[in-house]
Amino acid sequence: MLKVRGFAAHDAHSPLVPFTFERREPGPHDIQIEILYCGICHSDLHQARDDWKNSLYPMVPGHEIIGRVVRVGSEVRKLKAGDFAGVGCMVDSCRHCFACDEGLEQYCQHGATWTYNSRERDSERLTFGGYSEQIVVEERFVVKIPATLDLKGAAPLLCAGITTYSPLRHWKVGPGQKVGVIGLGGLGHMGVKFAKALGAHVVMITTSPDKGKDARRLGADEVLVSRDADAMAKHAGSFDFLLNTIPVSHDVNPYMTLLKLDGTMVLVGVLTELMPPLSGANLIFGRKRVAGSGIGGMPETQEMIDFCAKHGIVSDIEMVPIQSVNEAYERLEKNDVKYRFVIDMASLAKQAA
Amino acid sequence: MLKVRGFAAHDAHSPLVPFTFERREPGPHDIQIEILYCGICHSDLHQARDDWKNSLYPMVPGHEIIGRVVRVGSEVRKLKAGDFAGVGCMVDSCRHCFACDEGLEQYCQHGATWTYNSRERDSERLTFGGYSEQIVVEERFVVKIPATLDLKGAAPLLCAGITTYSPLRHWKVGPGQKVGVIGLGGLGHMGVKFAKALGAHVVMITTSPDKGKDARRLGADEVLVSRDADAMAKHAGSFDFLLNTIPVSHDVNPYMTLLKLDGTMVLVGVLTELMPPLSGANLIFGRKRVAGSGIGGMPETQEMIDFCAKHGIVSDIEMVPIQSVNEAYERLEKNDVKYRFVIDMASLAKQAA
Repeated sequence: MLKVRGFAAHDAHSPLVPFTFERREPGPHDIQIEILYCGICHSDLHQARDDWKNSLYPMVPGHEIIGRVVRVGSEVRKLKAGDFAGVGCMVDSCRHCFACDEGLEQYCQHGATWTYNSRERDSERLTFGGYSEQIVVEERFVVKIPATLDLKGAAPLLCAGITTYSPLRHWKVGPGQKVGVIGLGGLGHMGVKFAKALGAHVVMITTSPDKGKDARRLGADEVLVSRDADAMAKHAGSFDFLLNTIPVSHDVNPYMTLLKLDGTMVLVGVLTELMPPLSGANLIFGRKRVAGSGIGGMPETQEMIDFCAKHGIVSDIEMVPIQSVNEAYERLEKNDVKYRFVIDMASLAKQAA
Repeated sequence: MLKVRGFAAHDAHSPLVPFTFERREPGPHDIQIEILYCGICHSDLHQARDDWKNSLYPMVPGHEIIGRVVRVGSEVRKLKAGDFAGVGCMVDSCRHCFACDEGLEQYCQHGATWTYNSRERDSERLTFGGYSEQIVVEERFVVKIPATLDLKGAAPLLCAGITTYSPLRHWKVGPGQKVGVIGLGGLGHMGVKFAKALGAHVVMITTSPDKGKDARRLGADEVLVSRDADAMAKHAGSFDFLLNTIPVSHDVNPYMTLLKLDGTMVLVGVLTELMPPLSGANLIFGRKRVAGSGIGGMPETQEMIDFCAKHGIVSDIEMVPIQSVNEAYERLEKNDVKYRFVIDMASLAKQAA
């Protein structure tokens, strides 16, 4: 076994603290990665604090992982020692159901194995995430990171990136379309960049007028303040597609009125109930659709990374040492970050030294 | 003007009573129809009682109209005196927006003119529906009824029929698919017939085990009782498409779990809020969709009528004289009808004679 140092939550109420644990030695299909950077996703906070009532402790969060390959198993061909690699939300799946066969491992019929707060398939061992110095992952669940990509800004691509890229691609967003991105946070800022790079006319839809300038810098062609009833009425019935990144329960009805005939709004953030409730009339009049989308499969994650390399897209980040992770969580709770915290894992080595 | 006798509601609380009113003389593009049969739709009841808070009185309900052409305007080519004709929920629209251009008049950007409880476009006159002896309608909004179709059973096709046919066609339901029809009433029983005729494997999903036998007679391959948790679990993740005909607020979440990856549930009945609320997780895990669909456009309504003639499909009906319309409303409220009341308009002539 490999001895690995990281930071862990031990229950829902205590801060994350240094934690040493074991990982398996790489098998023939495994890749051992020295973690350089790990993004802080809002779901790290939810799970560390057991907000979803399914937390397993001790928990080493982190599923936006960028690192350097240090060792590969005898059968691994896709990467070699020295390459840069990425690991996202999943580290395994059943690999034989219809979803896995289509490269949609996130929808594995038997449940994907998550990067942390999950159990390995062949044992009862907990999975531990990226707030740590090393990780060992089966090659199918590792993507190749081109050296030309800014590595720090690339970390959030593994979750925030693929979560927004996948629905934009699946619903064929492109030139000639008017696309709204609802909510300007970690997901939303990536949604704006991707929708723009895909050629759509992009409208940032936000509750905060003061986010307008930044939205335009990120690539938005227009900004629509959702609290401005006149502006909302002006845009009514004009959107082909809406990417809704709001991570908490909210009223989706005003957004539905923005959609054209046959338009779709895709939810990527809200896992809870839609309150106030969605009205059936807002779907029936205009044959509109509300859909959901969760991260993306491994082939599409690699496609997204390559798209980012081609278009020079990374996340806007703020680097923090791992010793500041609890403070970062507090700021994240107040949406006080533009737009993603990324942990510089070198800080862990310094502490340990 | 034409003097026409019918039955009308004069306010939200009184029963419908005999009522004489005027209709326009047919213009060059109009068709004058002697009404033979008119279905009783649940929305007639809602509107007569002002449940949707938009009722205009006096109101002559009825938008499932079958009749005989008695006179056509000088420019009318599609029908001639003596032909059978149908009129559904709409009698006009703007005719020049993108929706009208696509033959989706029900989604007219400027609002369709409804067969009753609406105002004519060129005047302030109220529109009056099919609980009457004659109607005058612009030819675009009249469909041709083949004489081979059972005329009584054809009346409900103009609303219940097209409302279920249109989404099944739009979402390309056909052979090899497992399709659920939720709710066995006026809409649901048509949904089962159409889904079966389109070649799908049809599952009737109902709260009432005692509806099983009838569902099979209508064409269902299987019956799933939604209150049976074990049966629901057995069918989890197996449906390509769900047609949800429930006309009142209800919990859609258990139905979402029935859908496959990328599956769609289309609401055609519920115009109110979805309570208990829809959970975002039920969309995100499995990239599922909830959509709405409202009746159908005029070209598709004709297509549906022709499909019915080809496949021998009509509604299962119970005939009532117009003098029993208030009693029929009471029974409809208790779902005590298999599956649609149709008014025999000859009863009106007898009364008047």
